[in-house]
Amino acid sequence: MSRVWNFSAGPSVLPLPVLERAREELTDWKGIGASVMEISHRSAEFIDLADRIEADFRRLLGITDDYAVLFTAGGATTAQALIPLNFAAAGQTVDVVVTGHWSKTAIKQAAPYVRVHEAATSAPSEFTTVPPASEWVCSEDAAYLHYTANETIHGVAIRQVPQDLPANAAPLVVDFSSSIASEPIDVSRYGILYAGAQKNLGPVGISVVVVRRDLLERAGQVRADIFDYRSHVARDSMLNTPPTFNWYLLGLTVEWMIAQGGTPVFRERNEMKARMLYDVIDGSGGFFRNPVEPAARSIMNVPFFLPSEDLDARFVALSRENQMLGLKGHKAIGGVRASIYNAMPVEGVETLASFMREFRRTHG
Amino acid sequence: MSRVWNFSAGPSVLPLPVLERAREELTDWKGIGASVMEISHRSAEFIDLADRIEADFRRLLGITDDYAVLFTAGGATTAQALIPLNFAAAGQTVDVVVTGHWSKTAIKQAAPYVRVHEAATSAPSEFTTVPPASEWVCSEDAAYLHYTANETIHGVAIRQVPQDLPANAAPLVVDFSSSIASEPIDVSRYGILYAGAQKNLGPVGISVVVVRRDLLERAGQVRADIFDYRSHVARDSMLNTPPTFNWYLLGLTVEWMIAQGGTPVFRERNEMKARMLYDVIDGSGGFFRNPVEPAARSIMNVPFFLPSEDLDARFVALSRENQMLGLKGHKAIGGVRASIYNAMPVEGVETLASFMREFRRTHG
Repeated sequence: MSRVWNFSAGPSVLPLPVLERAREELTDWKGIGASVMEISHRSAEFIDLADRIEADFRRLLGITDDYAVLFTAGGATTAQALIPLNFAAAGQTVDVVVTGHWSKTAIKQAAPYVRVHEAATSAPSEFTTVPPASEWVCSEDAAYLHYTANETIHGVAIRQVPQDLPANAAPLVVDFSSSIASEPIDVSRYGILYAGAQKNLGPVGISVVVVRRDLLERAGQVRADIFDYRSHVARDSMLNTPPTFNWYLLGLTVEWMIAQGGTPVFRERNEMKARMLYDVIDGSGGFFRNPVEPAARSIMNVPFFLPSEDLDARFVALSRENQMLGLKGHKAIGGVRASIYNAMPVEGVETLASFMREFRRTHG
Repeated sequence: MSRVWNFSAGPSVLPLPVLERAREELTDWKGIGASVMEISHRSAEFIDLADRIEADFRRLLGITDDYAVLFTAGGATTAQALIPLNFAAAGQTVDVVVTGHWSKTAIKQAAPYVRVHEAATSAPSEFTTVPPASEWVCSEDAAYLHYTANETIHGVAIRQVPQDLPANAAPLVVDFSSSIASEPIDVSRYGILYAGAQKNLGPVGISVVVVRRDLLERAGQVRADIFDYRSHVARDSMLNTPPTFNWYLLGLTVEWMIAQGGTPVFRERNEMKARMLYDVIDGSGGFFRNPVEPAARSIMNVPFFLPSEDLDARFVALSRENQMLGLKGHKAIGGVRASIYNAMPVEGVETLASFMREFRRTHG
C-alpha cells in the first residue's frame, strides 16, 4: 500500500521527506559506516548534530539565550512530575487552569509534591470553553501558573498568552505538546514551555523543555540527580544516554519546518486546514457537531460527533477503507477526531473534508 | 562507505538484518500506509506488536509469569532513581556492591531516597576484582541488595548470581544494562533486573525492568503516578505514550536473537569473541594490558591499555582508518575499549584481534 492520510493524534504523521531521509541514512549515516542510532552520544559527530538541532530549534521558535533548551527521554507526563519537583518547594501552591484531560493529568502528576489550586476550570461547560483569563483566581504565593496550550482530546486551545492575565499571575508553565511550532508565539511571555515531540516535532520518545534560566536557580525539592533539570542543562541534555535516534528525527523535522517557511507559514496553513473542517462541521445542519465555542477551537485537533455512536463507528470504518487513518476519537470522549499537525498536508485535509460531505450526503 | 566494525559501548551496533528490516518498513509498516512510529500506541496493530515483543522477550530470557516486564522510556539511570522510590521505604537501608562506575551511579541516584550501605567494594583494587560474595556485609533490614552485572567501563562482570551469597541477603536488584541476554541466567534468583536497551537489546531510548510481582506490593515512597511502576504494570507499559519506534526495534532485535539460537548460542559466541581479545592481550608480553583479574573479566566490554597514552591514541586513530569504530576508552579511565555485544559478529572481533597483533608488531 502507498501512504495513507494519517490523522493520528500522536504518535502521528511525519513529513515524508523526513522518513525518506532517515531511511536513506539508516545503515550508514554521513558515511561513517554505522547508523546514527549505533554511535556514541559523546562522539564528535553526534555532539555536532545535537548542537545544530538546538540551534535550529531555537531559530524555529525564536528562543533567546535567556532560556535553556532540554531534549529529554520520557514524555510530557514525566515533565509534569519533574516540573513541580524542580520549580516549587515541597507543598508550595501551584495554580492550574483546567481546560480538559491533559490539564487534569498535570494536576495528577503534581499533586504528590505541591498544593494544587485550580485557578479556573471549564469543567462546568464540559471543557468546551476557555475560562476568561480576567477571571482566573491566582494565588499570592504560587510557584507557577500552569495551563495547557492545546487540549489534544477536547480540541480546546489557548493559542497565545491571554492579554488579561491577573496582575499577580506567577510565571507561566505551559504544556505545548500538541501545538508547539504550529504558529508563532512570544517565548518571552513564558517561564517554561514543554512538549512531547510526537505531534508537531515529529518522533515519539523524546520531549523538549524550554526553561527561563532564572527559574533554574530555584531549589525545588529533594530529588535524584537524574530528575534535576539543572544537571541536564549542565550536561547539554547528555547527563545520561539520550534517545539519540529520536533526537535525530526531531532534528530532521525541525529542519523541514524551517525549510517550509517556519511558524508563520504553518499558522496560515494550519488555520486554513482547521477552517476547512470546521466549515464542513458548522455547515452540516447539525449532522457533524463540534461542541467547542469557536474562539476556543484548536487548529491542531478537531473532534466531532455524528448523530449516533453507530454513525461515528461507521464513519471511522469507512474512512479507513478510504485510506484515512487514526480518525477514531479518544476513548475519554468518543466520536471522531482529526489531528492535523504541521506534517499533515492540505491535500489530506481536503480529502477528509470531501469525505465528510459525501458521508453526510449518503448517511444524513 | 559500507558498514564498519562498530565497537561502540552504547549506543552500539545493531544486527544489520534488524536495520534492513526497519528500513524496508520505515514508510509503510505491515501495509497500513504509515510507519510504525506514526501510529497510535493504542491501535490494535501496535498493541498486538507489543504483546508479541513481550512474549518473545520472556521466551529469550526465560521469564515466568511471577515477574512483570516493563518497557519504559528513559535509561537505566532513571530506573536507578525509580527503584528506591518504588521498593524501599523513605530512609530505609539498601545494600550495594560496588564494582565500578555504574555501581556508583546507582548509589548517586538512590542516595536522596534511602540510606545506602556499601556491602562490599572493589575500590581498593581500582575495580579490577569482584569482592567475594561470602564477604559481602548485608544489612538485616535492607530493602534490597543491588549490584551491577557488567561494568561497561571497567570491564568487570558478575555474570551469574554468586553461589555463596550471605544468608541474610535481601532480594537482588541487578543492573543488567550491558550484559542482558548475553548468556543464560536463572531469572528466579533475582528480585529485579533492569537494563537500558542500547547494548544487547538494540536501540537506545527504551529500557526494560523485570520485577518479581510480590515486590510490587511494597508501598515505596511518595511519588508521582508516572514514577509508580505499579501504574505502568497495570497499563501494560502504556501509562503514557511509550517510545514506540524504539520498542519496535527492540522487538526486531529480540526476534533476531531468538532466530540465532537464543542465549545459549550467544554465551558460546560471546565467550569465544572475548577469549580472542584476552588471548591477544595476555599473549602480548605486556604490550596490551587488561588489569582485571581473569575470573572477573567481562565478555561484553574489553578495556585495555597500551604502553603510553600516545600509543592508545595512535591505536584508536589507526583502527578508525581500518574501518573500526568506537574503540576509544571511556574518559573515566582512558585507554582502549572493545565492546563486543551480541550484535558484533565473530568476524569483527577477528578483524580487531588481527589488527592488535599487527599494531603490536609495528609499534611494539
